[in-house]
Amino acid sequence: MAHHGRGFITPAAQRRGMDISQERLREDIEANAAFGAVDAAEGRGRTLLTGSDTDRQARERFVDRLGDAGLDVRVDAVGNVAGRWAPPGCDPDAAPVAFGSHLDSVPRGGIFDGPLGTYAALEGVRAMQDAGVTPDRPIEVVSFTEEEGARFGIGTLGSSVAGGHRDAADALALTDDEGVTLRERLDAIGFHGDDEIDPETWDAWVELHIEQGTRLTEAGADVGVVEAITGITNCEVEIAGEADHAGSTPMYERTDALTAGAEFVLDVERAAEEVAAGRESAVATVGQGTIEPNARNIVPGTVRYQLDLRDTDTGTMDRLVDRCRSSLARLERTEGVDTDLDRYRTSPPTPMADRCLGAADDAAAVRDADAIRLHSAAVHDTANLAGATDVGLLFAPSVDGASHSPREWTDWDDCATAAGVLAETVRALAR
Amino acid sequence: MAHHGRGFITPAAQRRGMDISQERLREDIEANAAFGAVDAAEGRGRTLLTGSDTDRQARERFVDRLGDAGLDVRVDAVGNVAGRWAPPGCDPDAAPVAFGSHLDSVPRGGIFDGPLGTYAALEGVRAMQDAGVTPDRPIEVVSFTEEEGARFGIGTLGSSVAGGHRDAADALALTDDEGVTLRERLDAIGFHGDDEIDPETWDAWVELHIEQGTRLTEAGADVGVVEAITGITNCEVEIAGEADHAGSTPMYERTDALTAGAEFVLDVERAAEEVAAGRESAVATVGQGTIEPNARNIVPGTVRYQLDLRDTDTGTMDRLVDRCRSSLARLERTEGVDTDLDRYRTSPPTPMADRCLGAADDAAAVRDADAIRLHSAAVHDTANLAGATDVGLLFAPSVDGASHSPREWTDWDDCATAAGVLAETVRALAR
Repeated sequence: MAHHGRGFITPAAQRRGMDISQERLREDIEANAAFGAVDAAEGRGRTLLTGSDTDRQARERFVDRLGDAGLDVRVDAVGNVAGRWAPPGCDPDAAPVAFGSHLDSVPRGGIFDGPLGTYAALEGVRAMQDAGVTPDRPIEVVSFTEEEGARFGIGTLGSSVAGGHRDAADALALTDDEGVTLRERLDAIGFHGDDEIDPETWDAWVELHIEQGTRLTEAGADVGVVEAITGITNCEVEIAGEADHAGSTPMYERTDALTAGAEFVLDVERAAEEVAAGRESAVATVGQGTIEPNARNIVPGTVRYQLDLRDTDTGTMDRLVDRCRSSLARLERTEGVDTDLDRYRTSPPTPMADRCLGAADDAAAVRDADAIRLHSAAVHDTANLAGATDVGLLFAPSVDGASHSPREWTDWDDCATAAGVLAETVRALAR
Repeated sequence: MAHHGRGFITPAAQRRGMDISQERLREDIEANAAFGAVDAAEGRGRTLLTGSDTDRQARERFVDRLGDAGLDVRVDAVGNVAGRWAPPGCDPDAAPVAFGSHLDSVPRGGIFDGPLGTYAALEGVRAMQDAGVTPDRPIEVVSFTEEEGARFGIGTLGSSVAGGHRDAADALALTDDEGVTLRERLDAIGFHGDDEIDPETWDAWVELHIEQGTRLTEAGADVGVVEAITGITNCEVEIAGEADHAGSTPMYERTDALTAGAEFVLDVERAAEEVAAGRESAVATVGQGTIEPNARNIVPGTVRYQLDLRDTDTGTMDRLVDRCRSSLARLERTEGVDTDLDRYRTSPPTPMADRCLGAADDAAAVRDADAIRLHSAAVHDTANLAGATDVGLLFAPSVDGASHSPREWTDWDDCATAAGVLAETVRALAR
């Protein structure tokens, strides 16, 4: 992979000049993993829900480490945390370059999903400090609240507020399963702040995250440079037939919602496979379904499905929805069912900024890391920031693609390599 | 329809001789319908759960009416009720002919399902009394406990104890959703008796029930003479794929349990349709299903289905199960899923006794009722008694086939006609 425009510093000198400490990074991630650690037959898991005492411990440790590195810490209304580094020699009034990720997890999640990007950012600042690098712009290390949506039901919540997609007041009023609001949870752990963390004021943002897939390991690559974050369309589909006695209703008299639903599920799969034959980023999933009345001896009267359709191209997503509608229209004709499709949510695809892509490619070359371009099939905080600033996203390899599970793993060498590319990317952007 | 062997009494004289009072029957059914009556936009519904105060009221009224007709009432350990009529001139030591049904209902069930057969039996005795008919054998009017299984989870419970398929002690120890046993419920309403009600001591049993289907109305028939009660096989099927991230798992890397499950559901439907093309009694239903983890953004890892396969022929039921197994074997090969089929329950088909079939055919002719032969696709108490005595089952027409719903309806004329055929059948059997 070519790099260019670095001026008089040779790559080797730059590498030597900015050493990522794998030991320091690992210590941070492992210390963080101790908060909410769970027993697991295989791997290492943790449960870190927003506003729990475990969250408080993890946040306090993070804030302490930011402070140890000399960063000024701010906490905003929804608990997003930012540490600012503006060393002598940088222009304190210049728009900062920010990087980071999140610290929360799903229940029984892995130890790298979030913390790798958060602590790799801090390690990047420490590596710059150790190497005597003085950026032209301030640098901020950020951790966003409730990325997983595991407690308050909405993923990438903190970054959606920071990115201006949701009012802080609305987010703070969300309640968890116990009926307690986010505001109350944050108050209880001392992280309902009144500082501003506004991506509109940033020059750029870069996030490092685990891939949660196998494309990097299959390619033998060290790091993934994400070109676009997938768009997601969610639809709710209802197929209504007629509930009937499973004994006294002959086969020819049935309007069975589940058999019609089965045809729909297969049509969705077929549509996605046909589209994906041309572009792997296209996926369609019927992940959730209910049957009514769901009794062994009653012919199903109604089925409802939740659809998750994704691609990095809006037109492809629309085509997948069209295929779903065609399938339902066919079932109305051939099976006599009534159907409804509600496309209730669409997050458009998010392309990364060319500037960040170029910086990341160059950084990989500088660090002698094998990088490949790919797309992110999962949504990340970065998607919420794209409207406010130039964004970039890097992936570290996931062993077996496992994630949201104690089996999630990224080798420590790979963590350090990716952290080095991240730091180099930010150093270049902040120059 | 031919009848024979009636000797010197002409059919017309016999009809004149035994008048069913539609008014009396209707009054009984309507009075019974008042216990647990529910509001319904359409039709008339009731909720009568075993051991409730509503059940007590319905049972006490039934016992009173049995007493009014001069019957000696017995109550057994599980609350089955029998009223015995042994008028002077009959042999009190002869094995009695019994008839009846049940009084309980599903939640928001109809007013005829059970009570029609129970009160039609009583009306049959009253009609014989009014006509001065003296049977050679004693006659018993019976109401079985918990036919619907709506409170204690097991259908035809009372008759399963009476028929020797289940220990009374086991039945009495069953608990409802509130953790209260059947024994406690029956004690509370005064219907935990210590009399014997033993079908082994009977000469024959006949039940009248609503059809819960549309074959009678479609044929324009007044009454159905059931040749066999369907057998039922229940299977639990598990299909295990691999739960995966709905975004980061490309279509070609998935082992989606739901799409495999959809193929299975369609295979089951196809198998039943093919078999049913030759014999309408064959039906197969996937009525209940669950998805794990059942999250919108996770490729389904496991699906489980409950199967209900029915036919009046054991070989056909076995063939349907074989087809299910073949489908799963195919899915293991083509989709890479693991599958399991557990055939955990089989109630064999129950043929009715030739003696009862002949008596019912003749009775229909005597009463000038249009009768057709059919099968019962639902299980009834009668199925539990077939091993102990000669059994017969009659159906009255159900408007639109509706049942287990306030929309369930049988015209009062049809109730009276069917009650007349029932009474004539029992009179003939008791001769």
